[in-house]
Amino acid sequence: MLTTPMPSAAAPDTKIYDRRESQVRTYSRSMPRQFGKAQGPWLHDSEGGRYLDFLSGCSSLNYGHNHPVLKAALMDYIAADGVTHALDLHTDAKSAFLRTFEDVILEPRGLDYRVMFTGPTGTNAVEAAIKLARKVTGRELVVAFTNGFHGMTLGALACTGNAGKRGGAGVPLSHVSHEPFDGYYGEEVDTADLLEQRLADPSSGLDAPAAFLVETVQGEGGLNAARPDWLRRIAALAKKHGALLIVDDIQAGCGRAGGFFSFEGMGFTPDIVTLAKSLSGMGLPFALTLMRPDLDIWSPGEHNGTFRGNNHAFVTATASLREFWADPAFADAVARRGGILERRLERMAERHGLSTRGRGMMRGIDVGSGEVASKITSACFDEGLIIETSGAHDEIVKVLAPLTIEDAVLEAGLDILEEAVAEAIAPVVRPDQRKLGVAA
Amino acid sequence: MLTTPMPSAAAPDTKIYDRRESQVRTYSRSMPRQFGKAQGPWLHDSEGGRYLDFLSGCSSLNYGHNHPVLKAALMDYIAADGVTHALDLHTDAKSAFLRTFEDVILEPRGLDYRVMFTGPTGTNAVEAAIKLARKVTGRELVVAFTNGFHGMTLGALACTGNAGKRGGAGVPLSHVSHEPFDGYYGEEVDTADLLEQRLADPSSGLDAPAAFLVETVQGEGGLNAARPDWLRRIAALAKKHGALLIVDDIQAGCGRAGGFFSFEGMGFTPDIVTLAKSLSGMGLPFALTLMRPDLDIWSPGEHNGTFRGNNHAFVTATASLREFWADPAFADAVARRGGILERRLERMAERHGLSTRGRGMMRGIDVGSGEVASKITSACFDEGLIIETSGAHDEIVKVLAPLTIEDAVLEAGLDILEEAVAEAIAPVVRPDQRKLGVAA
Amino acid sequence: MLTTPMPSAAAPDTKIYDRRESQVRTYSRSMPRQFGKAQGPWLHDSEGGRYLDFLSGCSSLNYGHNHPVLKAALMDYIAADGVTHALDLHTDAKSAFLRTFEDVILEPRGLDYRVMFTGPTGTNAVEAAIKLARKVTGRELVVAFTNGFHGMTLGALACTGNAGKRGGAGVPLSHVSHEPFDGYYGEEVDTADLLEQRLADPSSGLDAPAAFLVETVQGEGGLNAARPDWLRRIAALAKKHGALLIVDDIQAGCGRAGGFFSFEGMGFTPDIVTLAKSLSGMGLPFALTLMRPDLDIWSPGEHNGTFRGNNHAFVTATASLREFWADPAFADAVARRGGILERRLERMAERHGLSTRGRGMMRGIDVGSGEVASKITSACFDEGLIIETSGAHDEIVKVLAPLTIEDAVLEAGLDILEEAVAEAIAPVVRPDQRKLGVAA
Amino acid sequence: MLTTPMPSAAAPDTKIYDRRESQVRTYSRSMPRQFGKAQGPWLHDSEGGRYLDFLSGCSSLNYGHNHPVLKAALMDYIAADGVTHALDLHTDAKSAFLRTFEDVILEPRGLDYRVMFTGPTGTNAVEAAIKLARKVTGRELVVAFTNGFHGMTLGALACTGNAGKRGGAGVPLSHVSHEPFDGYYGEEVDTADLLEQRLADPSSGLDAPAAFLVETVQGEGGLNAARPDWLRRIAALAKKHGALLIVDDIQAGCGRAGGFFSFEGMGFTPDIVTLAKSLSGMGLPFALTLMRPDLDIWSPGEHNGTFRGNNHAFVTATASLREFWADPAFADAVARRGGILERRLERMAERHGLSTRGRGMMRGIDVGSGEVASKITSACFDEGLIIETSGAHDEIVKVLAPLTIEDAVLEAGLDILEEAVAEAIAPVVRPDQRKLGVAA
Repeated sequence: MLTTPMPSAAAPDTKIYDRRESQVRTYSRSMPRQFGKAQGPWLHDSEGGRYLDFLSGCSSLNYGHNHPVLKAALMDYIAADGVTHALDLHTDAKSAFLRTFEDVILEPRGLDYRVMFTGPTGTNAVEAAIKLARKVTGRELVVAFTNGFHGMTLGALACTGNAGKRGGAGVPLSHVSHEPFDGYYGEEVDTADLLEQRLADPSSGLDAPAAFLVETVQGEGGLNAARPDWLRRIAALAKKHGALLIVDDIQAGCGRAGGFFSFEGMGFTPDIVTLAKSLSGMGLPFALTLMRPDLDIWSPGEHNGTFRGNNHAFVTATASLREFWADPAFADAVARRGGILERRLERMAERHGLSTRGRGMMRGIDVGSGEVASKITSACFDEGLIIETSGAHDEIVKVLAPLTIEDAVLEAGLDILEEAVAEAIAPVVRPDQRKLGVAA
Repeated sequence: MLTTPMPSAAAPDTKIYDRRESQVRTYSRSMPRQFGKAQGPWLHDSEGGRYLDFLSGCSSLNYGHNHPVLKAALMDYIAADGVTHALDLHTDAKSAFLRTFEDVILEPRGLDYRVMFTGPTGTNAVEAAIKLARKVTGRELVVAFTNGFHGMTLGALACTGNAGKRGGAGVPLSHVSHEPFDGYYGEEVDTADLLEQRLADPSSGLDAPAAFLVETVQGEGGLNAARPDWLRRIAALAKKHGALLIVDDIQAGCGRAGGFFSFEGMGFTPDIVTLAKSLSGMGLPFALTLMRPDLDIWSPGEHNGTFRGNNHAFVTATASLREFWADPAFADAVARRGGILERRLERMAERHGLSTRGRGMMRGIDVGSGEVASKITSACFDEGLIIETSGAHDEIVKVLAPLTIEDAVLEAGLDILEEAVAEAIAPVVRPDQRKLGVAA
Repeated sequence: MLTTPMPSAAAPDTKIYDRRESQVRTYSRSMPRQFGKAQGPWLHDSEGGRYLDFLSGCSSLNYGHNHPVLKAALMDYIAADGVTHALDLHTDAKSAFLRTFEDVILEPRGLDYRVMFTGPTGTNAVEAAIKLARKVTGRELVVAFTNGFHGMTLGALACTGNAGKRGGAGVPLSHVSHEPFDGYYGEEVDTADLLEQRLADPSSGLDAPAAFLVETVQGEGGLNAARPDWLRRIAALAKKHGALLIVDDIQAGCGRAGGFFSFEGMGFTPDIVTLAKSLSGMGLPFALTLMRPDLDIWSPGEHNGTFRGNNHAFVTATASLREFWADPAFADAVARRGGILERRLERMAERHGLSTRGRGMMRGIDVGSGEVASKITSACFDEGLIIETSGAHDEIVKVLAPLTIEDAVLEAGLDILEEAVAEAIAPVVRPDQRKLGVAA
Repeated sequence: MLTTPMPSAAAPDTKIYDRRESQVRTYSRSMPRQFGKAQGPWLHDSEGGRYLDFLSGCSSLNYGHNHPVLKAALMDYIAADGVTHALDLHTDAKSAFLRTFEDVILEPRGLDYRVMFTGPTGTNAVEAAIKLARKVTGRELVVAFTNGFHGMTLGALACTGNAGKRGGAGVPLSHVSHEPFDGYYGEEVDTADLLEQRLADPSSGLDAPAAFLVETVQGEGGLNAARPDWLRRIAALAKKHGALLIVDDIQAGCGRAGGFFSFEGMGFTPDIVTLAKSLSGMGLPFALTLMRPDLDIWSPGEHNGTFRGNNHAFVTATASLREFWADPAFADAVARRGGILERRLERMAERHGLSTRGRGMMRGIDVGSGEVASKITSACFDEGLIIETSGAHDEIVKVLAPLTIEDAVLEAGLDILEEAVAEAIAPVVRPDQRKLGVAA
């Protein structure tokens, strides 16, 4: 078993959370442990238990926890009194990041983007992206998609589909139209056709859009992976109608759904790209908005933010690019693990008449309802596996294992999942079954 | 002289910024150096120059750069593989922060707040605050104030007065009314009277407000310090009209404008408080929204965000609270330095027929125009002093020195400022004057 | 030929229009005559020409111009100094209207509605309807439909699909989602299915709607007639999701598309109905919003308007209800004429491989493009027939003849149309064809 | 006594209103009679009572009820089968109106406006005006004023100050800022100064305005009459800041507050003017938006409306312009009656320590509360005088007598008012007082 669930004598005082932490907290409710240390794919609680992390900070920890190379780079930087915070002043750390991003990421992919350091959260990068698109085009409407998730601040929230999140706004969410994502109406209906018709029709009620804002794989919306062909059509429609194509690669990027960018090799180039989550490589707050150089018409300071220069994140991001992306071996390994994940999930799905979702190392299984999914993730947690759900009804159990996970550990985690799925879907006790644990 | 302005042979390649960084950058334009190390009040550029920092990351570095106690705490934590990122799971670091915040900050001040870990940027804390106020009251309008500054995401930006920032939105900014701040129409007009009349008048066009959102000292808007009496009236008006009082203490809090909270001792208690900037103590991204426990009606996850648990920031914030706020000596020292700052600025103002603004260690001098102010800050930079402006016309030269600065260093920096002001205001060369530098 | 196109010596001075009338004028551009008298289906210009009116004030003159019964009732009323204007005070004329509306319209149809006298324009009735739906439900979103047309004031305009009209708003049009009307994506896709899925999906981005606002036949949007089955599904979806069903019967009502209400006999009852255009019977401004009695939760005066009691219109409306709707013979005659219209349009369509649209006496022919349609209506005008276009591209030539038109006159007008269509679609001169005019 | 209050045997059935008319009705609640005929200043109920009308359809009947000249013109027109409705086609009636408006109104005043025939309600004219201002300037914000009233449709309602009306919207009302009207903060504060400061301050939160929308005398908002000097300053501020000045002359125009336009002789010329209410002269629905010719950049049909050509109203409007405005004698007589009204109200005010409001024949007395005002209007109604209230708290009893009223009848009505005020304000019975009635 992965965890040691018995509370020790030194169990931490968790009353402080009831007393002082807002009710808005979520994950700590279904995973009521207090964690202290973390290394690679493992999280350790304060009572001696350890957990295999198939959540990875919702794809913020693609290289696992506290990767030694990143950790060393950061400690060296701090030890040397490297600048921690300098607003948007030039720093050695920023310079190194920009040069590395250019060398390792942009140039090999033939991409030419300017980098905007927004506030270090994904929602801030999205807000900057839609502001820029509105500024460039002089239009107001953003076309977002069903089940899209883009953040919690008012501009990004308007682009988010989830009713629970939207309801928190307290004001109507405007200037956005949610069009059907790829596959939304089933296989028979190509939703790009629907969008094309609405855009071409001057009486459709759809105003001329400033931008299309799309995830290639919808991380929170159910791991729906758009077909490359659909994405190319969307890109072409944006171009035809004078809208900018914004790919929100915050969850799917940094290797999670394929290459460094989730849209690599698909035959189109977004006008604007947002990145965050795993960008720092170590879970530090860091976000970027990339834009075609000719779109970079910002006035100085027109969009700013105190923490737009998180130098610690520059350091770890630079180290992560060099460590993982300078050599194709990493991407190859990720692809191989993605294959393992795909096969295992497909097997589970076939066994129970279910279906899978996703791409790369961003995959899940549709277990039919949030209730069943919750039963599964809860059973996994009891067995030492941290795993969460996704989708409109939380009906998708999603695997967001570290990209760096060893194959054997990945398989061991999937064993736990497979077991939990089997129990939840066909809860008849079969005597020949036994738990497949990983020694703590 | 504080700096060594001669470019060394090893001058860093800054073309990377032109090539890859968005035009939106600002501070690096007026301070075209690349910085590497920083300690206490000093920033060091890559060519051997050092600068005294009277900007402090716009009040994000109240305890100076890389304070040894905070730095040590952080390095110990990283070295031990402490959890870096865990979404909103319970961690030892979060628990320690909450307990310390309760012990050192809340209980001694008789305050009872719940803590919401929003995304780690100020704008996110503001967005959460106004969402909550709208949710609690079922109303939509937020009363903000002229010259207020609250952030760049769409909800917070609507509350911000600055036309340049607002213009970036690309959509109309709604659901907010900007009412005159204290003193806005001069001493003869009490703007609380004006607001009272509008609120009481059912035909004023001012809808019933969900919240008043106010800074006690307007950091970006010109260091306008509201009188405690005005703030009490505003608090009473909010209560009378069923609105929540939100104090945005992001820039003025953490000791900058008085106590830990800028409103301490003023005879009113906000319903909601936002904190960010210096909260982590070391310049790491970290923000909070505090709320009266009975207002904590969030549904789990109704407002979330990937980086809402920046554990590195928990560690340094905890260390900073223990180091600086557990003992009244720190606040006393800050008050003393605030007195020095006040006297020096008053002296400059008297000499040139100018006026001063602000409170505590958050003060400035109104030099009449942005042009003059820019001349002054530029001259200061040439002498090794980093200092910036504030106000609707950038006409206030603002001093945001570290709270921890030694008196002599503070005075030395103010000498440079005094000289620059004298030259800019009365640019006649007076032979008896000479530059007062600080040896590098 | 219907008209006498030669300008007489006494041709009116039309320069006054260039000098004083706004550029916003439209119909006078394609029909550059000045009209003086009008009777039944005929409009007479000031130069002695007469025109057969197949436009009928966009369905505002369903009983023709200056019907003698209505005219007499109005003249008697004026002669007797009947109240012309009395805001919303009770008047004999209003009382008579209400009683007649109850007796002749509501009771025979088993309908129980309260009558709200809004300002006397259709857009005002629509604004009142959506206000009420928002008030009753506490929700903000209105689901309108592609190609819908509901008015020019800001609330109604947001529900209107036409880009040219929307563009005039000068502000973003919010709180409305335009969903596909019946048949929008062709015969294979049932758009009620699409709407059902979006409403049921909590992550679709479609907020809970206050109302569905629908025309049964889209008068301006191309004479698209919704199938009764689709309307029933829409009605059921509204009910299921707590939204009110508003039928905008401003153009299709008053007998134009079937019974007095266009939805009669379709197996559902709207919660709210708007009426205007032909309601007064004589072209006088008059509009109503009908609502289920339990929805009538207005505060006194919450929605008002100076001209909400147009007593002249009450008089003519009462007379029109008694004259035309107290006996089923009128509806039967209208149905018969609708049949003539249908057959003639079908014949034209078949001949040229075109398609027809509409229902009842609200029908048109899709000639493929606005250019061709304009050629046709222009040719008709030259032959003395006033006829206009509809549709997203103005590609539908629409026939809105008076419901009271004699069959022979209807046929004569359709002869002109048939000729014009034939010439425009297949412009080869066929020697055996000759114009079928009506003696002036 | 003016009325005969005893219900006759033939009392009309008023249950129809309870059964069928919406709760939104207002005036019929405080004046529960049913009216039949009306002539000059008199309204006759169906039971034989007659009432002196000091409400005049809220200034829609400036020339009294059914003026014989207007009535004759209309009856002649109808008898001759004059066009009643023709959308926006040219008609003899429209041509005559335009020429008369040019000759009698525009040219003598040196005004050069284009005329836009909007839908025939005031709110429609306002919607067109603000649309145009937004279109011309490319800006979105309209500056309206406290206590302003501009209509019930969503665009106009956003400009209206009244909370009860605003609350009916059901959505937030956006894109408008309500600035203090002249005198709003008492005599010491010139609110033009306040507005000037906010407009000049780039951090005030007030976005660049498309238009200022102002009434010279606020009809619904309490008969607040702006000083000409204040209006000139507002006009100058609009010009300076690139905003258009829209005077909403719907209630104050057509002679009510001075000349034909309420702003005549004040030394400024609005860019856009809205007219409605008394424009037709006889209470028929009719509204106009006037604009400087260079602002007339509408596309054809960009703002339209079915009833934008109410030819009956053209006829009576033309007759009213010729009858009343072609000769200065009428304006002189109105000024004299305004003087009578002023003196009588001043006398009442002095006697009871009250204050008066208004200008011309648009005046009222502030009786301190809506409760007192209601008592007064109710007592007046019992004595046969129809009179209503205005103001944020309905605390102003307003006199909107016909402009054509005979002096003796005016005085007789004011006698009733004086008595009612005296009783309500000092309700001690004074034996020497007796009612001053007008024989029925």
